[in-house]
Amino acid sequence: MSKFTSQLAAAWQKNNSLLCVGLDPDTTKFPAHLRDEPDAIFEFCCAIVDATADLVCAFKPQIAYFAARRAEDQLEALIAHIHAKHPGIPVILDAKRGDIGSTAEQYAIEAFERYQADAVTVNPYMGRDSVEPWLAYKNKGVILLCRTSNPGGSDLQFLPVGADGTPLFEQVACLVREWNVSDQCALVVGATFPEELRRVREIVGDMPLLVPGIGAQGGDIEATVNAGKTTSGTGLMINSSRAILYAGKGEDFAEAARKVALETRDAINRYR
Amino acid sequence: MSKFTSQLAAAWQKNNSLLCVGLDPDTTKFPAHLRDEPDAIFEFCCAIVDATADLVCAFKPQIAYFAARRAEDQLEALIAHIHAKHPGIPVILDAKRGDIGSTAEQYAIEAFERYQADAVTVNPYMGRDSVEPWLAYKNKGVILLCRTSNPGGSDLQFLPVGADGTPLFEQVACLVREWNVSDQCALVVGATFPEELRRVREIVGDMPLLVPGIGAQGGDIEATVNAGKTTSGTGLMINSSRAILYAGKGEDFAEAARKVALETRDAINRYR
Repeated sequence: MSKFTSQLAAAWQKNNSLLCVGLDPDTTKFPAHLRDEPDAIFEFCCAIVDATADLVCAFKPQIAYFAARRAEDQLEALIAHIHAKHPGIPVILDAKRGDIGSTAEQYAIEAFERYQADAVTVNPYMGRDSVEPWLAYKNKGVILLCRTSNPGGSDLQFLPVGADGTPLFEQVACLVREWNVSDQCALVVGATFPEELRRVREIVGDMPLLVPGIGAQGGDIEATVNAGKTTSGTGLMINSSRAILYAGKGEDFAEAARKVALETRDAINRYR
Repeated sequence: MSKFTSQLAAAWQKNNSLLCVGLDPDTTKFPAHLRDEPDAIFEFCCAIVDATADLVCAFKPQIAYFAARRAEDQLEALIAHIHAKHPGIPVILDAKRGDIGSTAEQYAIEAFERYQADAVTVNPYMGRDSVEPWLAYKNKGVILLCRTSNPGGSDLQFLPVGADGTPLFEQVACLVREWNVSDQCALVVGATFPEELRRVREIVGDMPLLVPGIGAQGGDIEATVNAGKTTSGTGLMINSSRAILYAGKGEDFAEAARKVALETRDAINRYR
């Protein structure tokens, strides 16, 4: 079992939580008192992290929000903060990278060496050799897009493939099951499609599933947990970003975030 | 016609070239005298750019090589240099991003506002709404992965889809043809599969195609041009990176790069 997978299993147990908090720092939604701070993104995310670290199984910073604002240094500092203050909580860098081998090696350096992420999200469209440079970091998690939570996800992922018309996302699940020789892979499967989540769970056994789409995107918690949990009642990283990050708009935003995170964790646990 | 598309058409004509030089700055391959410079990546890439700008239809910096080395500032400076010194040559940011709408908006800010790229490569796996935030920049180019040049590209892209078993990459070409209402889209189709390049050309008419895979990856120039050119003998951005960037290992590396770029441009032109 990879270090990522075992760390995730320990966090599920220790915090009794399948909740992953997504760190998508949109400065236009920040509380007014933070907006003009020079390191507002770092300060905001650290406050959220410190207020929720005992309620989550993982944190998932979304690199696009940092890159759009020249805040790569704040992303590095944020991940270092999580590792230092909350050891044992895995950090998933949500980057959805995907490129040929020599370039994928550079992206892997970016994610695992520069940012020190414990896992990264990867796009499978370019196939196995584009994923191998990630898999070469055997202690790290590689979380491949399978069935995404957005409406357009169906444009490709739901296309019927082969003689039996299996949807493409099921083929991806089968491929990743093969690639997972070091027990380090996971899949992204949106909460907006519980029946498809159930089908992926059947295909991949106990492989962890990262599930976006509850909260702001409308996915149902009961249906998600019922469809996606393993026989031991784990196996899921159920992500919530905006509903937690922007629960409060004042100086008490971190407390408001903690309240929603606690409610969400407990709502998830009711169906495990 | 989008600004990107018209700029590309003008560069094809002005420089009599379908060659795109890919800027994949691998510092371990730099000439010895540059390796210890503080801005070695910027210096190296600018030397290549200045030596080849009259021979190309586009430059394509690969962001992974910059991000792996904390060199985002050098990427910004490089693109600003190209715009200032070689106006009219479009800059394609090779980033292969792809995410849900709200995140794609952030990536579009990164590519088009922060880096001032004229076009960007995008992964289609998440479907139309993941591409729309890019398309909203109507003057910019959006270059979607279709049939990539790596061996693993077949894992998904060659899967037979639907009742007639059309390969997935052809479905992507059909989808992008629909998305291209502002005449701003292009497709990535590898030179390693000339027959598939021909098929994509049939599907998308005069849409520009970005073709990696000649040179180090083994694609054949004659077969590529014959399969991919439009009736007017253009329509292609044929990319070469390593074979040009690392043609020389000494202080004359830029001259060596120019020599290979000139040979490559002329080799392409023999078959137009």
